[in-house]
Formats: sequence, C-alpha cells, structure tokens
Amino acid sequence: MKIVLDVFGGDNSPFAQIAGAVAFVNEQKNTDVVLTGDSETILGELKKYKYETSRITVVHAPEVISNEESPTDAIRHKKESSLVKAYDLLKTEEDIGGMLSSGSTGAVLTGSVLKIGRIDGVQRPALAPLLPTRGGGRVCLIDCGANVDCRPEFLEQFALMAVCYMRRVHGVENPRVGLVSVGVEDHKGNALTKEVFATLKKLPINFMGNMEARDALTGDYDILVADGFVGNVLLKTVEGTAKMVMSELKSAILSSGSAKFGALFMKKAFNKLKHDMDYNMYGGAPFLGAKKVVVKAHGASNPDAILAALRQVNKMIEADLVAGIKEEMVKLADLTQGDAAHVE
Amino acid sequence: MKIVLDVFGGDNSPFAQIAGAVAFVNEQKNTDVVLTGDSETILGELKKYKYETSRITVVHAPEVISNEESPTDAIRHKKESSLVKAYDLLKTEEDIGGMLSSGSTGAVLTGSVLKIGRIDGVQRPALAPLLPTRGGGRVCLIDCGANVDCRPEFLEQFALMAVCYMRRVHGVENPRVGLVSVGVEDHKGNALTKEVFATLKKLPINFMGNMEARDALTGDYDILVADGFVGNVLLKTVEGTAKMVMSELKSAILSSGSAKFGALFMKKAFNKLKHDMDYNMYGGAPFLGAKKVVVKAHGASNPDAILAALRQVNKMIEADLVAGIKEEMVKLADLTQGDAAHVE
Repeated sequence: MKIVLDVFGGDNSPFAQIAGAVAFVNEQKNTDVVLTGDSETILGELKKYKYETSRITVVHAPEVISNEESPTDAIRHKKESSLVKAYDLLKTEEDIGGMLSSGSTGAVLTGSVLKIGRIDGVQRPALAPLLPTRGGGRVCLIDCGANVDCRPEFLEQFALMAVCYMRRVHGVENPRVGLVSVGVEDHKGNALTKEVFATLKKLPINFMGNMEARDALTGDYDILVADGFVGNVLLKTVEGTAKMVMSELKSAILSSGSAKFGALFMKKAFNKLKHDMDYNMYGGAPFLGAKKVVVKAHGASNPDAILAALRQVNKMIEADLVAGIKEEMVKLADLTQGDAAHVE
Repeated sequence: MKIVLDVFGGDNSPFAQIAGAVAFVNEQKNTDVVLTGDSETILGELKKYKYETSRITVVHAPEVISNEESPTDAIRHKKESSLVKAYDLLKTEEDIGGMLSSGSTGAVLTGSVLKIGRIDGVQRPALAPLLPTRGGGRVCLIDCGANVDCRPEFLEQFALMAVCYMRRVHGVENPRVGLVSVGVEDHKGNALTKEVFATLKKLPINFMGNMEARDALTGDYDILVADGFVGNVLLKTVEGTAKMVMSELKSAILSSGSAKFGALFMKKAFNKLKHDMDYNMYGGAPFLGAKKVVVKAHGASNPDAILAALRQVNKMIEADLVAGIKEEMVKLADLTQGDAAHVE
C-alpha cells in the first residue's frame, strides 16, 4: 500500500515533509510513500537520510500552490503543482490509498471535491480534526470550515461520519456526540441546530444532546458537531486563547525575579503542557466523506507532525474508513426512507 | 442618581451583591443604590457594614427567578421576584438610570425586552461583554447570545451600538471593528457575514474587515461583531480553553517535585495571570439597545465583580449611552434612506 505526500506547502516545507516521510517508512514496514514536488530538491534532500530507497518514490511537480491563490483556479490551472499531481495519483493509482498535504486548506478541499469526489450518498465532506482535552484525551470537531452554510442533513451526516471515524480509526467504541449550541437544554439553539437536534435524536448513535462551547475540552465528549462556520470559530478560538494564556503566563513570569527563578524548576512541566496542547501531535484533519483518504496537516507542521499525520492516514486506510462511511450512508438512506414511508 | 440592583440571583447571592453595593456607595458619592429582594435577609446582612444608611434603600421582593425557569413565564408570572421588581422600578422611577442583575441571563434579557423595551430604531438589543486581551487590554464582543438567528441589519446595528459604547464609556476614540469570520480575506464568510461585510464597509466606523477567531484576544480589535450564536460559542470557548490550560498547567506542576518547588516562587505570577484572565474584573455584560441601562453580571460574581459592574452601570448612565445609541440609530436611518433615495 502507498500514501502520496504533497511535499510543497506549509511553513517548513519541503524539509519537514521529507524528514517525516523517511521516519514513516523506517517505522512502518507495510506502507510506502510517494512524494510529489520539485524532484531535484526532493532527491537532493533525501540523500541526507538513511532508508530503504525503493520505499520512497518521487514524482516531479515543479509548481506550488500558495495560500493566496484562488483554490478553484489553482486546482484547475496549476496541473504541474505538487498538490494537483498528488490528487492525480490518488485518483488513478489503485495502490495509493490516501493523500496528505500541509498546503492551502482551501486548495486541499477544492482539489478533493474536484479530483476525488464524494462517497455515494455523502452530501458534503467535512474537516474533522482532533483537539486536546483535559487529562490528555481528544475530541473530534466536525466540520471545521469546509462548509460555512449548512442544511440540517449535512450535520446529520457529519455526526455519522465522525462516529465511524472515531470508532474505526481511534478505537472509541461508542463515541459521545454533542451538538454545539448555546445551552445544554433541548430547546436551546438557533434555527439550524434545533432541526439538527431533532434529527440526531433519531439516529442510532450515542447522542448526548446540546453542549456548550465551554465544555468542548473537558473530555465529556468524543465528537462535537457544528456547521463549518461555527466549528471554525470554535477551533480558532481554542488556538488563540491557548496562545494568549501561555503568553500572559510568560510575561507574568518575566515580570518577577522570584518567578523567573521558580520557572527554572518548571521547564519540564511547561514543556509537558506545551506538548499536550500541541495539535501537531494529533496528526492532521481528515476530510471525511471523500472517496479516498484525504488528510490536511497543519501549515506549521514539523517532521513529528508529518510523521503523526502519515500514521493517521495509514490507519484510516487500514481501517477501510471509506467503506465504513459508505455503509453508514446506505443505512442512513434506509432509515430516512423508512421514516418517509412511515409518514405516508 | 440611582442604580437598582437585583440582589437574588448568582452563585454568591445575596452576600456578594450586598457587599458590592456597600463598597460602591462608600466609593461613589453621587449615585445611590436600591436593592430588590427579601428585605429581612438584606437588612440583616446590611447591618454588618458601615455606610451612610440613607444611600441604600431596600424594596421587598420575596420571590427568586432560577436559571431553570422559562424566562418568559418567570417574567410574566413572578411579579414579586427580585428581578421583576428591579425592572418595575427601573421603568417607573425617573431617578433610577440603570439596573444590574447576576441572575438568569435569559430572564434578564426577556425582562428587558418585555418591561423596558428598545430604543427607537433598534431592531434587536444585544449582549456586549468585554474580554481580556494580551497585555491587559479589552475587546467588546457583540452579540453574545441574545439573538441566535440574525438578519444582516441586526449586526449592522450591533456594530454601531458597540462603537458608541466603547467610545462613550471606555474612552476608545475610534474603535477598531472586526467581523468574526473564517478568514481575513474580504470574500471569506458565510451567507450572513458576506452581507454584513458589505454593509459595515459603508458605515462611518473604523471597520477593519473580516477577522479570524484566533485573533480575538490579540488586542488588534476593540470590537468583534458576530451573530449571537457565534458570539456565544466564541465567548464560551475562550472561557473553557483558559480553564483547560490552567488546569493542565496545574497537573503538570503537581506531577513533578521540582516543578512544585518552582511553583512556590511563582505564586504572584500565577495570581497576576488569573487576575488578568478574570472577566469578573471587567464588570458585566451590557444589554445594548435597551431603553435604559441594563447590565448582566456573571453568575459567579464576587463582591469585587459586583462593585466593578456597578461602576460600569454608573459610567453608562453618566455618559448617557442610551441617548448616544438613539442618535446613532437616527443617523443610520438617514444613511439608509439616503442610500435608498440614491438607488431610486
């Protein structure tokens, strides 16, 4: 089996991508990696590492898609870009099961829609990263920005896809699903979430009801369902607040001599915290609902983050997540038809 | 001038409210306080303090509205509750310029709408608390949950009301306004924010364009505009994330002997951070657009928080915020008419 890795895109590209790929093939015996990008640069960089050379192949792609470009234009016209090449390979090569990129999120999502397509029955694929929770756990937030305007049926499918993902890939047998709302009571919410609430109630999932964003990271939920606009705001608020608290802590420490002295003894504790809060460690954000495994790694990914994301892609392929989501969509269609029949 | 304070409601009620009221009249020479609630309890508690007794009056209100009750039912039927009494006084007594409550947010908002009403021209009043930013600043987030389903015109008015508030009450001459979105580019957003973006562009305010939630607390904005659902999610995510980071830090410290030792030298730094992050210190959330000054204090308010919120109510009355917002609405109507005339 193989994973294709878009080498150009992200702050530390191509070095982090190449180092991560080498670490991955050295650790993982059954999955090889295909790298797309400027072959001269990549081959030159690869020479620095020790690994079984047959396990990493390079496909030349001289162009790079930047964050500033229109995703649709870039996917349509930059046919020689590392991302489009990666998608072309993912689409045509049967032994390539998944794609990883740390490039422009918009281009990755657009490319997936235009080049790979949706699993039958899926109305809208969705971005579903993991966030750290208290005590070292994780929670899956779906959708984080792929769909900023949603109909209730989209969120219903988001919930089902995330349940399948958390079960098959992360071993959470009966994931606890919360609907992001403005209060925990059943009647709280806006027009969209009220409709979604009624729908989720009927699904054969462990639906815990409405939840408040202040409990997003308590560890009380395995999955948080939101439309892409709200999910994006939640995700970025977590990021911004964590950064703000850490920076305020730093300046509080620097403003006092005794605190500076005390901090010397706390380096390990601070590093542990930084590590726990570091979403780089939790791999990338899968684009659930795409016909093949597609994962977007953070733009700031370092080699460890790329390695973690490659492991995750590998697990998603091994667990046959795509087939799992397909089954869920068939079951949902049966359920909805049954409902409709019942109404008639 | 007088402020009416709903004494019953919130975790530390009535003690925090009474202590805060006493501290306020001892500090503030021109504004008296009227307390509503069970008079026996209040008078008994007041005996413990030293203050000019004529400056605090008590109006008996034996009932209490809880967080669990339907706000509309409670406001309609609990006529002897501390909140409804407070609103009755605010409505009828001319020398009472504002009301403060730390009770149920829903009941405070509903009470304001049913009992006090909106300033002419205001379509929807909105909750607008201040959040702490890096380096000890503040940012006003409007709306935080009063209006979960919004039309673009509502957000346009939110922006204008918040500008007036930040200018008159917090002395920010030309507040920088950001529209909460999923990216900083002009075209980013959902159907609602795209319309709002176009509207805000035309207003005579310092509109900085779309902003991302990760920059909410950087200090780059004085005002963040969002619909009440999104604003509520943002506010509660800040709260939950700050709590999570602090608790992870605590457990990282407790897990190491040397860190525990180091922490002894950092008590002051930690307390400074806790203080900076404590929204209790920033007073309550004003309900902008109501015909008189209405402020909701946090349910967990301690005496310091009540004192801070009373100062804020006082400042809002002195600055004649209500008149200011009224003027803004007249100007907006002229502007909109001008636009319409121009189109014709």
